[in-house]
Amino acid sequence: MVVVLENNISDSDKEIIRHFLETKGFKVREIVGENDTIFGAVGSVSIDKREVELLKGVEKVVPIHKPYKLASRELKKEDTVISIGPVKIGGNRIVVIAGPCAVESREQIIASALAAKEAGAVMLRGGAFKPRTSPYSFQGLGREGLEYLREAGDLTGMPVVTEVVAPGDALMMKDYIDVYQIGARNMQNFELLKTVGSMGMPVILKRGLSATIEEWLMAAEYLLASGTEDVILCERGIRTYEPYTRNTLDLSAIPVIKKLSHLPVIVDPSHATGIRDKVSPMALAGAAAGANGLIIEMHTDPDHAMSDGPQSLYPEQLEKLICDIEALAPVLGKEMA
Amino acid sequence: MVVVLENNISDSDKEIIRHFLETKGFKVREIVGENDTIFGAVGSVSIDKREVELLKGVEKVVPIHKPYKLASRELKKEDTVISIGPVKIGGNRIVVIAGPCAVESREQIIASALAAKEAGAVMLRGGAFKPRTSPYSFQGLGREGLEYLREAGDLTGMPVVTEVVAPGDALMMKDYIDVYQIGARNMQNFELLKTVGSMGMPVILKRGLSATIEEWLMAAEYLLASGTEDVILCERGIRTYEPYTRNTLDLSAIPVIKKLSHLPVIVDPSHATGIRDKVSPMALAGAAAGANGLIIEMHTDPDHAMSDGPQSLYPEQLEKLICDIEALAPVLGKEMA
Amino acid sequence: MVVVLENNISDSDKEIIRHFLETKGFKVREIVGENDTIFGAVGSVSIDKREVELLKGVEKVVPIHKPYKLASRELKKEDTVISIGPVKIGGNRIVVIAGPCAVESREQIIASALAAKEAGAVMLRGGAFKPRTSPYSFQGLGREGLEYLREAGDLTGMPVVTEVVAPGDALMMKDYIDVYQIGARNMQNFELLKTVGSMGMPVILKRGLSATIEEWLMAAEYLLASGTEDVILCERGIRTYEPYTRNTLDLSAIPVIKKLSHLPVIVDPSHATGIRDKVSPMALAGAAAGANGLIIEMHTDPDHAMSDGPQSLYPEQLEKLICDIEALAPVLGKEMA
Amino acid sequence: MVVVLENNISDSDKEIIRHFLETKGFKVREIVGENDTIFGAVGSVSIDKREVELLKGVEKVVPIHKPYKLASRELKKEDTVISIGPVKIGGNRIVVIAGPCAVESREQIIASALAAKEAGAVMLRGGAFKPRTSPYSFQGLGREGLEYLREAGDLTGMPVVTEVVAPGDALMMKDYIDVYQIGARNMQNFELLKTVGSMGMPVILKRGLSATIEEWLMAAEYLLASGTEDVILCERGIRTYEPYTRNTLDLSAIPVIKKLSHLPVIVDPSHATGIRDKVSPMALAGAAAGANGLIIEMHTDPDHAMSDGPQSLYPEQLEKLICDIEALAPVLGKEMA
Repeated sequence: MVVVLENNISDSDKEIIRHFLETKGFKVREIVGENDTIFGAVGSVSIDKREVELLKGVEKVVPIHKPYKLASRELKKEDTVISIGPVKIGGNRIVVIAGPCAVESREQIIASALAAKEAGAVMLRGGAFKPRTSPYSFQGLGREGLEYLREAGDLTGMPVVTEVVAPGDALMMKDYIDVYQIGARNMQNFELLKTVGSMGMPVILKRGLSATIEEWLMAAEYLLASGTEDVILCERGIRTYEPYTRNTLDLSAIPVIKKLSHLPVIVDPSHATGIRDKVSPMALAGAAAGANGLIIEMHTDPDHAMSDGPQSLYPEQLEKLICDIEALAPVLGKEMA
Repeated sequence: MVVVLENNISDSDKEIIRHFLETKGFKVREIVGENDTIFGAVGSVSIDKREVELLKGVEKVVPIHKPYKLASRELKKEDTVISIGPVKIGGNRIVVIAGPCAVESREQIIASALAAKEAGAVMLRGGAFKPRTSPYSFQGLGREGLEYLREAGDLTGMPVVTEVVAPGDALMMKDYIDVYQIGARNMQNFELLKTVGSMGMPVILKRGLSATIEEWLMAAEYLLASGTEDVILCERGIRTYEPYTRNTLDLSAIPVIKKLSHLPVIVDPSHATGIRDKVSPMALAGAAAGANGLIIEMHTDPDHAMSDGPQSLYPEQLEKLICDIEALAPVLGKEMA
Repeated sequence: MVVVLENNISDSDKEIIRHFLETKGFKVREIVGENDTIFGAVGSVSIDKREVELLKGVEKVVPIHKPYKLASRELKKEDTVISIGPVKIGGNRIVVIAGPCAVESREQIIASALAAKEAGAVMLRGGAFKPRTSPYSFQGLGREGLEYLREAGDLTGMPVVTEVVAPGDALMMKDYIDVYQIGARNMQNFELLKTVGSMGMPVILKRGLSATIEEWLMAAEYLLASGTEDVILCERGIRTYEPYTRNTLDLSAIPVIKKLSHLPVIVDPSHATGIRDKVSPMALAGAAAGANGLIIEMHTDPDHAMSDGPQSLYPEQLEKLICDIEALAPVLGKEMA
Repeated sequence: MVVVLENNISDSDKEIIRHFLETKGFKVREIVGENDTIFGAVGSVSIDKREVELLKGVEKVVPIHKPYKLASRELKKEDTVISIGPVKIGGNRIVVIAGPCAVESREQIIASALAAKEAGAVMLRGGAFKPRTSPYSFQGLGREGLEYLREAGDLTGMPVVTEVVAPGDALMMKDYIDVYQIGARNMQNFELLKTVGSMGMPVILKRGLSATIEEWLMAAEYLLASGTEDVILCERGIRTYEPYTRNTLDLSAIPVIKKLSHLPVIVDPSHATGIRDKVSPMALAGAAAGANGLIIEMHTDPDHAMSDGPQSLYPEQLEKLICDIEALAPVLGKEMA
């Protein structure tokens, strides 16, 4: 922690601050310049920096530690590569996860799985519990949906991922799925993070609607501290003032995450843009920015989808997109998985 | 729903759009101007507007319905006034709810309750389950904290409010508390909203960190649709680009809410600003903007608080603030409750 | 400047960084803790912090100096009080500046001035050069408008303030007005700031649409460094994701500014909210938050105003508002000027 | 304009609204549904929508016209392709504009031009008038810088672009440059837009720090309405709450702009990210998202640059990046120009 002192601080105020920091367990060094004085306070001490800011004569307090440990690149230099059945996520691979927004019926999810596989996807997505902004909207098939999803995954040999919305569901879901997904609105639902992390399985963690990169990594830290080692970060657009797009896809977060953390990061261009014709350009841009994968909504009949039809690709659009990504991959030094 | 058509739309595209809307159950009327044509589509039909936006020849789609009903001023013209023991929230009253961030011990919460009562507060707050951004921080006393909180409330004759963070806790908590609080990070934790709403008790619903006013009212709608009639909205600052303040307190939301909804709205200046010396000016500003109450963190020994000490008022500061609000109230046409 | 080093930095990288800083003119002190090492670099040196961030082994760089000097509270402990004819702005006074958005005619501005004076305002506003988002909108009466404004001010004994939009106009305007206004969209039009500052007259500086408090104070610094001593900061709402209100009035900026700077700060609730019925609650909230004044749009016939009619108060609304502020003032320890 | 009426509006209020709209020149049609009534008001009438919102019984007003005309895709179906000497911008080409942040000396800009040309860039950038956030920073060489820039352009056969910051400079600059640049902070400096537009030359218009896409197109409209036909839009990152990156590059704006407007759009990854190692990934992502070009800061000796050295590429990094873009181009259906 660095404590910048006010220009005209009195000696007694300075001593009070020094004493406060030492009492808390910090080792304090003073640095005096022509116009300014700072205290450098080092030590493995955790403290609310505002406690120091409130002391008389303090101009500003600057924390120097990152608050996350397990998620940090410092702890683990090499990229984490996560194995999910035959699929590997991380390192120099690009994977495509695809499927409908919601599991609507046995037939629909099986047809979707076949189409996704045919188009080149390697993992299947599909929601059984849908967190909807309106209490009057379709909320998903629940456990029945999980059964159909598992069957579709087994039939096509693809691992499956689905969203978990309540701590009480986590254990039951374990039998049906390969990867949990934590949605954007639940990124700081800490009870959910603790329970899901304790299942010890891979988790896709979506970035919250207005989460900073640090808060996102702290949510990953909750999962990692609770028992899983396999967290995949998923950028899905953040909230800004711009009304034309549903969210603003923050692709610069990808190189930032790559520097701060060893965890793989994927992009969800479907929720980021909310409309079909912008999904493919943003998927390509995500790959070009360095993402380890893409999670894309596809529906065999988007015009009759029960949710998010307008942002779902047609199977042939997905196929075209995966071809384009395959063409891009070598330019980016990546391999399609 | 209003569908604005492109200038040079063909007749056949126009007919396809009209047919699509009629099939969905809308009654469609065409309005032709010199430079533009629109379809007005009315009816009690729920539809994802993007489905129409994707049709050829559509320029823009504008929904005309508010998505919330029970929370709307249209459903209920007069202000909702909520009775919680001896306290009434809503209408032309201003109430002050006060107490520490967290229940730390039996002694601490009893001392806090006595100080809050003495200063003029009418309800007691105190957290037993603390949602913290770091998994390594103090997470609250849990059930033990609820017992102490109840005891402190009973001793002083004040109703008590505390945050609920997991659906599984809601039923157990019912025996201890008078008002549930849903925190900002859980505003769109829909499973929590459904369970807490079904308890049928009053709920303080904090605005999410980057929730729009409409999303906030939709979260209230979840609570109201699940079984409670008593929702108190709480503005606590939103996320903006400004780094100097922790959050940006959005006081203009108060007159907006008053127009859109019959529900009472209170202000939390402690979390909005995060630092003690800005709490009182923002509390007064909140009252002046029309809030029905304030929820304020106060600690009998903030320098040794286990969380959020730096934003907690000293008891004498709370007393001074409540005096100032009492002086303001008649100018604003309000009564202190 | 504080340079946080990476955990596992090599000795040679550390020496390269130290040498780089010393070559730039910094005095460098190393502080070693259990888990971290920092360099404190002090000295009156100006440097782009990213130059240091790019050095191998650097984790983070934290500047410790405020970039503004003349605007800072450190330079001048006591509040600046600005005299404009009979009016004083700053310290413990609250002033109300009122008038129409635009000067539309001689009759209109004279009628407005009389009504503003009658209602209790002490300074007259009115735009002669209007910066409009559309090139096809009314752009103001120009010099003719300045003449009418001056006449209206002289007739009522009120100083006048109007917006300047081009450096080439500043000198000519000096003969007509008492205070220049820099609009939100021009807050970082540095050429305009330099020219207007060099006129040596008082300036109202509106906060940019998405300006940080530091950028705002830097814009004030441009004015102060160019020759004026009299800058009045004006909070007028910032851009956020919320669509219901035109802007989000950031009242917490007021106590922040009061701590960082000696300059007076006023609030413009008319542009912040954009709609008449929210102007008065936000004006009262601004006063309660500690503002030194309010600038309010009023029109004698808002329904036929040439611009911003919907956010203009009727004269009787202004009168009621000023009465309410007079009643609030003593509670806030302020005097109406 | 669509006027949504309140559910329980009285007949007389409805007639007042209808009469108001007809008096303003609108043709009004009423559409009545089960639960709602709307007025469709069509006609070539310009009106402040808030005037209608304030009428009793009005729930909401929705404008249906785009406020820009000349910039719109409706006016001109095919992509605008702008010729600047031998360079063409727009359509299916990708161009790279490169050069230092500022012209620092004759030698420096000539060396930069040679390096940029060698790396594959087709146009030269370099600032002579620098709008700096601090009045105490280097403000550019001014006219002398323009002379050196022209010389460097002539020597290498590359057109040159530089920023204009004051209306009074525009005419003088015309002799030295091929393209004007309007910076982000001046995007709504309407006096500057009018003067620069009247020069009739190509203009690169950077998006304002927190400008919506509509405001950006309105700024383009100012230029187009003032006399130029050649406007190139430049996305350079917007302001969000995220502190890790300087700005958030909004690449989804590219497909949006392509739909709304016929104007070419380029990306500035240097200012968007502010740091060298993120420039190349974001440049590739911009190309993948559909940009017509990139404007990139490069310096032959970034460590001694007078401004923005840390975000400037080394010449060999630029060369590598242009090679990568060349490899991507055919996948994207584009040609390098």
